[in-house]
Amino acid sequence: MSLLVVGSVALDSVETPFGLKEDILGGSATYFSTSASFFTPVKMVAVVGEDFPQAHLDFLKGRGVDLEGITREKGRTFRWKGRYGWQLNEAETLDTQLNVFQSFSPKLPESYRDAQFVFLGNIHPELQSQVVDQVKGPKLVAADTMNFWINGSRPSLLKTLKRVNLLFVNDAEARQLSGEHNIVRAARAILGMGPQRIVVKRGEYGALLFDQEHIFACPALPLADVFDPTGAGDTFAGGFMGTLATAGRVDGEVLRRAMVMGSVMASFTVEKFSLERLREVERNDIRVRFSEFKRLTHFEELGPLDG
Amino acid sequence: MSLLVVGSVALDSVETPFGLKEDILGGSATYFSTSASFFTPVKMVAVVGEDFPQAHLDFLKGRGVDLEGITREKGRTFRWKGRYGWQLNEAETLDTQLNVFQSFSPKLPESYRDAQFVFLGNIHPELQSQVVDQVKGPKLVAADTMNFWINGSRPSLLKTLKRVNLLFVNDAEARQLSGEHNIVRAARAILGMGPQRIVVKRGEYGALLFDQEHIFACPALPLADVFDPTGAGDTFAGGFMGTLATAGRVDGEVLRRAMVMGSVMASFTVEKFSLERLREVERNDIRVRFSEFKRLTHFEELGPLDG
Repeated sequence: MSLLVVGSVALDSVETPFGLKEDILGGSATYFSTSASFFTPVKMVAVVGEDFPQAHLDFLKGRGVDLEGITREKGRTFRWKGRYGWQLNEAETLDTQLNVFQSFSPKLPESYRDAQFVFLGNIHPELQSQVVDQVKGPKLVAADTMNFWINGSRPSLLKTLKRVNLLFVNDAEARQLSGEHNIVRAARAILGMGPQRIVVKRGEYGALLFDQEHIFACPALPLADVFDPTGAGDTFAGGFMGTLATAGRVDGEVLRRAMVMGSVMASFTVEKFSLERLREVERNDIRVRFSEFKRLTHFEELGPLDG
Repeated sequence: MSLLVVGSVALDSVETPFGLKEDILGGSATYFSTSASFFTPVKMVAVVGEDFPQAHLDFLKGRGVDLEGITREKGRTFRWKGRYGWQLNEAETLDTQLNVFQSFSPKLPESYRDAQFVFLGNIHPELQSQVVDQVKGPKLVAADTMNFWINGSRPSLLKTLKRVNLLFVNDAEARQLSGEHNIVRAARAILGMGPQRIVVKRGEYGALLFDQEHIFACPALPLADVFDPTGAGDTFAGGFMGTLATAGRVDGEVLRRAMVMGSVMASFTVEKFSLERLREVERNDIRVRFSEFKRLTHFEELGPLDG
């Protein structure tokens, strides 16, 4: 079934101890779509500037991403500038320029309006709501957010959350949003705000899926080399939503598989810089890594004679 | 098979916002043994002072803990004093008095010397080594340590580690001991120091088991109320070692079950203050909670037609 994403498409410039990389393809919708594209075609809604290279659009198109919802506006593309120190595992943000995203007003092409699975990337809650206005009866509306909106646009976010079926947050965001320190209490509080399900992303500690009655815990793959965690959360969401859209349904078994697939995809992203690893990954790599996750977690139930 | 533990038996005094509890039973060997006692008889090696209440010894004996290795010395029992604030989830250490533990020299009774499974609780590495000297051909020697020994008695610890088959550490200890920040690299480095296996305890984030080729990840049970994490690590070790000793062997399947059982037992300990919850737990509670862990983590392998 169809999968729609609205989010940022960016040009990133990154300083490393080994040199400067400028204007490389980035953005939350980019990571999401590249990840999800292994599972299902993705319909993207975003805005880029006059300076956005055609080559990047060709890359996305080559991945089966539907670009009809991407508009090219006068002005510059959303830009992010970061710097990696010798730690090499997290970038320090030097500069963020919204540019054309400043006045972004998502308009869904007609062909997008019956998307069954919708991912509202991390943008202003009001814009997220506008996208929900334009889809007709999706099976699942999922959303991501960040401390910037939780703190700065809380009333708008709370309104939008009433229309969201599944929210992705990290530990800190869950705590900020709910006012609870304990993660179970935080999740329960957020479940009371609209979403029927919450995914709490915990970086190297894995992820938790909550609904009113159940919790599912999925680990992150322990890796000796975590090169660049940028985009891992969006990659996770892409693998997750891609799995749901492929299955065409939302039940316990599919949700669990979606959690693991999200973790599988994120485990690739962090292994190399930016989108490099995702560009190389093949479907068989995904199968193999999914099996690694099974081996990482599997244990037998107690037998009747066991203590 | 027999399980031996050497560690601290203590009298704890704790201030809470609701009052003062003095001289309650504590100590790493106490938590370990109480936990392990659900699975197998435990042989304890420790030292208490003249002031140690018989009632505490009776409690341990009632749990099937063999007290022949506990000596009563002139002087005061090891004492720990802590304070809980309104957070109620971690105690601040106000005072630690080694007392009779200052001159502790573990002497194993003859009946202890053929213990098959040995747990060297968190004491001076030299004393841990002395215990290994006194056992004849155990199947597995496991040990715990802490930053105090890693920093202050490193050469002695490194000597002892050569004689240890399995080391329990938390994230911070693994990093301190190895000098590596990445947890996989840290574990690999420690695997080069003697132990064939490492368990990295990560509190609310679960635990990881490493050997040269495999990693197993076990979650912690997400709990709405984490009342008192004191003793959780020792409780984990008790459930883990109790499971191995019951099975009488050390293979992949048993080790995984031991990890989960450790996590099961620790999940009880944190629910109430001190040993209170462990005192109440019954075997059926353990089975039920083990099943909860299965539900918390289980997912199906991909089918041939899956993406």
